[in-house]
Amino acid sequence: MKLLCLASKIRHIGFVCSSEFCSIKRVCETAGLVKSLFTSTSLNQKWGTKKQHRNVKLKIFLEEMTDPKVEEVLAPLRASVKEQGDLVRKLKADGAPAIDVKQAVVELNNRKKLLEEKELSLSPHITFDRAKMEDLLKRRFFYDQSFAIYGGITGQFDFGPMGCAFKANLLHYWRQFFVLEEQMLEVDCSALTPEPVLKASGHVDRFADLMTKDVKTGECFRLDHLIKSHLEKISADKKTTEGTKAECKDIIVKLDGMNKEEMHAVMKKFDMKSPLTGNPLTEPIEFNLMFATQIGPSGLVKGFLRPETAQGIFVNFKRLLEFNQGRLPFAAAQIGNAFRNEISPRSGLIRVREFTMAEIEHFCDPSEKSHPKFENIKDIELLLYSACNQMDGKSAEKRKIGEAVSEGLVANETLGYFMVRIQTFLHDCGVDPARLRFRQHMGNEMAHYAQDCWDAEILTSYGWIECVGCADRSAFDLTQHTKATGIRLAAEKKLNEPKIVDVVESVPNKGVLGKKFKKDAKVITDALAALNEKELGELENSLQQQGSFDLSVANQKFTLTNEMVSVKRCKKTLHVEEIIPSVIEPSFGVGRIMYAIFEHNFKVRENDEQRTYLSLPAVIAPLKCSVLPLSANAEFHPFVKQLSAELTKLDISHKVDDSSGSIGRRYARTDEIAIPYGITVDFDTLKEPYSATLRERDSMGQVRIPLDDIPMVIHNLSAGKVTWNDIEARYPKFEQQESKGAS
Amino acid sequence: MKLLCLASKIRHIGFVCSSEFCSIKRVCETAGLVKSLFTSTSLNQKWGTKKQHRNVKLKIFLEEMTDPKVEEVLAPLRASVKEQGDLVRKLKADGAPAIDVKQAVVELNNRKKLLEEKELSLSPHITFDRAKMEDLLKRRFFYDQSFAIYGGITGQFDFGPMGCAFKANLLHYWRQFFVLEEQMLEVDCSALTPEPVLKASGHVDRFADLMTKDVKTGECFRLDHLIKSHLEKISADKKTTEGTKAECKDIIVKLDGMNKEEMHAVMKKFDMKSPLTGNPLTEPIEFNLMFATQIGPSGLVKGFLRPETAQGIFVNFKRLLEFNQGRLPFAAAQIGNAFRNEISPRSGLIRVREFTMAEIEHFCDPSEKSHPKFENIKDIELLLYSACNQMDGKSAEKRKIGEAVSEGLVANETLGYFMVRIQTFLHDCGVDPARLRFRQHMGNEMAHYAQDCWDAEILTSYGWIECVGCADRSAFDLTQHTKATGIRLAAEKKLNEPKIVDVVESVPNKGVLGKKFKKDAKVITDALAALNEKELGELENSLQQQGSFDLSVANQKFTLTNEMVSVKRCKKTLHVEEIIPSVIEPSFGVGRIMYAIFEHNFKVRENDEQRTYLSLPAVIAPLKCSVLPLSANAEFHPFVKQLSAELTKLDISHKVDDSSGSIGRRYARTDEIAIPYGITVDFDTLKEPYSATLRERDSMGQVRIPLDDIPMVIHNLSAGKVTWNDIEARYPKFEQQESKGAS
Repeated sequence: MKLLCLASKIRHIGFVCSSEFCSIKRVCETAGLVKSLFTSTSLNQKWGTKKQHRNVKLKIFLEEMTDPKVEEVLAPLRASVKEQGDLVRKLKADGAPAIDVKQAVVELNNRKKLLEEKELSLSPHITFDRAKMEDLLKRRFFYDQSFAIYGGITGQFDFGPMGCAFKANLLHYWRQFFVLEEQMLEVDCSALTPEPVLKASGHVDRFADLMTKDVKTGECFRLDHLIKSHLEKISADKKTTEGTKAECKDIIVKLDGMNKEEMHAVMKKFDMKSPLTGNPLTEPIEFNLMFATQIGPSGLVKGFLRPETAQGIFVNFKRLLEFNQGRLPFAAAQIGNAFRNEISPRSGLIRVREFTMAEIEHFCDPSEKSHPKFENIKDIELLLYSACNQMDGKSAEKRKIGEAVSEGLVANETLGYFMVRIQTFLHDCGVDPARLRFRQHMGNEMAHYAQDCWDAEILTSYGWIECVGCADRSAFDLTQHTKATGIRLAAEKKLNEPKIVDVVESVPNKGVLGKKFKKDAKVITDALAALNEKELGELENSLQQQGSFDLSVANQKFTLTNEMVSVKRCKKTLHVEEIIPSVIEPSFGVGRIMYAIFEHNFKVRENDEQRTYLSLPAVIAPLKCSVLPLSANAEFHPFVKQLSAELTKLDISHKVDDSSGSIGRRYARTDEIAIPYGITVDFDTLKEPYSATLRERDSMGQVRIPLDDIPMVIHNLSAGKVTWNDIEARYPKFEQQESKGAS
Repeated sequence: MKLLCLASKIRHIGFVCSSEFCSIKRVCETAGLVKSLFTSTSLNQKWGTKKQHRNVKLKIFLEEMTDPKVEEVLAPLRASVKEQGDLVRKLKADGAPAIDVKQAVVELNNRKKLLEEKELSLSPHITFDRAKMEDLLKRRFFYDQSFAIYGGITGQFDFGPMGCAFKANLLHYWRQFFVLEEQMLEVDCSALTPEPVLKASGHVDRFADLMTKDVKTGECFRLDHLIKSHLEKISADKKTTEGTKAECKDIIVKLDGMNKEEMHAVMKKFDMKSPLTGNPLTEPIEFNLMFATQIGPSGLVKGFLRPETAQGIFVNFKRLLEFNQGRLPFAAAQIGNAFRNEISPRSGLIRVREFTMAEIEHFCDPSEKSHPKFENIKDIELLLYSACNQMDGKSAEKRKIGEAVSEGLVANETLGYFMVRIQTFLHDCGVDPARLRFRQHMGNEMAHYAQDCWDAEILTSYGWIECVGCADRSAFDLTQHTKATGIRLAAEKKLNEPKIVDVVESVPNKGVLGKKFKKDAKVITDALAALNEKELGELENSLQQQGSFDLSVANQKFTLTNEMVSVKRCKKTLHVEEIIPSVIEPSFGVGRIMYAIFEHNFKVRENDEQRTYLSLPAVIAPLKCSVLPLSANAEFHPFVKQLSAELTKLDISHKVDDSSGSIGRRYARTDEIAIPYGITVDFDTLKEPYSATLRERDSMGQVRIPLDDIPMVIHNLSAGKVTWNDIEARYPKFEQQESKGAS
């Protein structure tokens, strides 16, 4: 099992067929392949060393495939995927044994992988130099490895001033875009979580990767990584027979779907040792990815750092529903950090041990998933990579969301509405529309309770990376916590007309229970109230036949007798019915989105390869403008000071750069940290009517603008209320060769 | 040792005389005493139960003492404090043994405690009903115990929609007020911290409380709490002799200053058992308050959840200085969560296991601590409770910060500047000016390296609570990390004129070192470069006499020979000198500040004791306005919808309350969640010119206002750009008896 993906949470696992994370894995394998095009860049480098730029370029997919020649090459691969997809469908339809379906799915994924790699390699591309970008991000301290002066810890990153401001702006915009717009109920819950909560959610038992340890040094390896590299090494050896090579290839293909025993058999068969020391290795160990600790001093309360923020919302459901005056639908949201103890984190911000998530849980009536604002967005197009297209070897397709929902491709309006909102948010934040798609989970990836699940995947130099998950999770999570606590996490729905029903209910004798069980009495009455009809029947039988009943609640057993509880049967008129709400969950991996935005906005000036910049949209740019005195002339100082004060009054973050260096060089420096607008105070500024130049980062266009206008103009530009075109139309153009100054 | 206080961090400990945290402890003991005035309120209550309001009132201090009668009562207590303060001063001046000084300080603190309790009991007061406030905060889900449906975990809280929005607004304002205004470098660092970092900071060895365990059940008790309650019980027993009672009292007084052995002796003497089971107790155990975990799967990398956010800034100092182009001064800031595994958390949000901090580290030249903006704020008054006044039994005094700095009472301008900024921030956020003071650490509380330290303390029903620390910590933190890593965390300062100096330096032979020590060679050359003159002398001697030198770096030892390194002595002309910057640190406990703001803004309407509200300032209020249709009439709907859309466009958080209930009842409901402004759409709204009523929460005043004006008016009111008085002057008053509707 492989669990790097934020939204494909373990909450799925164990309730699905075993090949679940295969498609996610596929993404990563592709990433691995793409990565091998590079000379590798150590993420471990300390600051202070000078990194050489390597002349490596990356081809990345940019447009839909339309070239007939390309299609000709791809046709047999597409056919091969479709053939296997059809086989999987047939096996499922025929009710074939699970193991056969599983094997067919493994093969299907392998064929999909080959197709996607070919597609990527043949598609139109732009060049991208990851090492150069990483150098910029490190040099200008967007982020760096945590505790670098202590040697650093893999999988942990600190955001410096520019990264931190970018992140804060991104989250602020997220709050405005989602929480404010939909009047969501935002919560802020504890990260330290006691074991029973994560037991109920499934994380304690199943949030694990397989690993093996060097028996002498204790060094750990992710088992699937180890087997793959071992077999690749064997295959590459000239002395290896063709038969063995074929066997190795076959195992690598099937690795995704293998369980612990199968992997162990492979380890033994090929006599695998530690690649570092040659020492023997332990048997496969299931390593839980949660960080464990103890809450309180006794060592008795086991806790974990939460691996996702969603559980905090679910356990507070009842209070939130109350806050919303008992009404459905409503959405809750949470921004916060989550923690996963990855065995061997890599890929920079893509897979880390400590990360920020922003999650939404939209609770609604399971029979009513329309959305009041769907009408407004129904004509918006998304690039949809449906499960069906994946099975058929087809590409992703642009579709209007209204059509996709009405055809049943996307399960319901609410899910579709959020997909569109996610897309708009990502576009606003600088994700390239051509490199964003929504990939549907295939039947075999999706949890049995889930209605539908679409991942927003962004194409980066690591391949297609899942950045936002968007799933209809039905009533699963609330049901799990209800089972674990005996407290019904449900809502009431008014019936159109009253209903007369046969009622079976438990009638606890609270006096007797209280006397006998003291503080546990409440737990017992809650559990009794939560029994369903079948369980009540069992209670009734047991009381009649044995005179007692053993009630199990949260690892405790209570023996109840006829004096303590009875079962009553009668008719009742109901005006409301109880429903367990469905949950539709958009879940954002903030670090991954930030990384994708960095890649999509890392630019090189035409005709000047050394001059790189980040074209982050103003709304999320770390600083909104720079204030640059043309020179160290003291007369400029009061103007700079006053401009800075006026900008501060309007809460506009900015940077005064009064260092030496030509104005062009300073522009280049502010371009590197993505500052969208630059104000230059020059000799004309000193004369009435006071004015300065205002420059836009991406176009490098400049206008002459009165000093008094500047703060409001920057404010409106940053808030997206006016565009740079508006400003150019309104103020006289300022013509000066910037490149002259920059040289 | 007792370490609840956010700003009085462990970083002080071990470098100070042993009675350090006594004054902090004093605060808590006072809190305990004040608390005993209440019928206790269980924080453990599950939601769903109805809490009875208890008719308990709290007297709290409101004004400076001026009543001569009160002063008459206090005079002997003041004299008693002064007498002991003078004794402490004399003992220190005479160089008396440490133990004598310590005993005298314990007595001094006891006398101070008696004085403060008397002061509080005699001072003018307002009534405050904490149970009633807590009921409101819980009922409207500002916050609640985390994982309540699982029984809850003490010391952990979840913020619901109103608490979360309040917190987000408070932090947003903090960012504007500090980070933006001073152009601070904000960072966002990892919470999971490897052991060596916290070893260097002193937390691994010394961040501990004493506890004892029930040998059979494992139940833990904080040792000082246990001893105190045991001795109080003995004292209350009628059978106890006067002699024993006196002894108990004496021990309770001295408890603050007792070490492990002394407390153990008391336990044995009084034969203390577990108060819950009567079982024997273990010897005192030092319990480290950090949550431990393992980073990575091998179990070899020990880590902790950070107990404060500051270390993340210090370890990134070099990069931050670089980002600031090598210039001093600059300030870095961080908002983030920290974790402390309290043995027995209590007092609601005041002492918790997981909490948000906002910390600033202002780095400056140790010889230059003036501040460019000091001139602007020098006439602002603060209520200063100086160390001297504490020793002399005097009260806190109002002083202009300019005078306090020029007299040397506050150590320097930068410290003074931040104290004023802290005060203004707290006032803006709703802290009552009469209940805020700055208490200076006394000589015996302050770390030896600290220049000066003032805590912003806020008076609540728990007593005076330290909410913001503001300390000049000198070069301590950077020095510690330099020592631990061998990487010099220092800045360069340009000399006024070049200086010729004798230089001693190590000359490593990198070739030989590299061959011998491989990847460790860099560590060794870094460590050699970090040796001071004395250490270089030792190196030189050792090489000459023994032909080798043992270099210790971060728990490793390397044997160096003459081929690997030599020592060179020469003269050099220096143009810059290296300085280790001083750090001035304002450190905010966000949860504590929130709690204090809740208390100071919890109000009851005159003549209607049941109608309570929260008068949070608009800038931090969770929602800025409500939109209330007068009734369910369908004609109101489009107006409500459009108003809501217009408010959203201006990013104004708001709540549409179209539930049934009279308008007065709905106002009361919005008052409870601190919504400052309410818009009511009524029948007059339907007619041209379209208008609505706008109501202010605290005064309950209303005006009639055109619909089109509303969004901008709310925006300006919320941003503090106009006042309610301005609005009342501009629009016609709307007269309607609200209380009629409310009944």
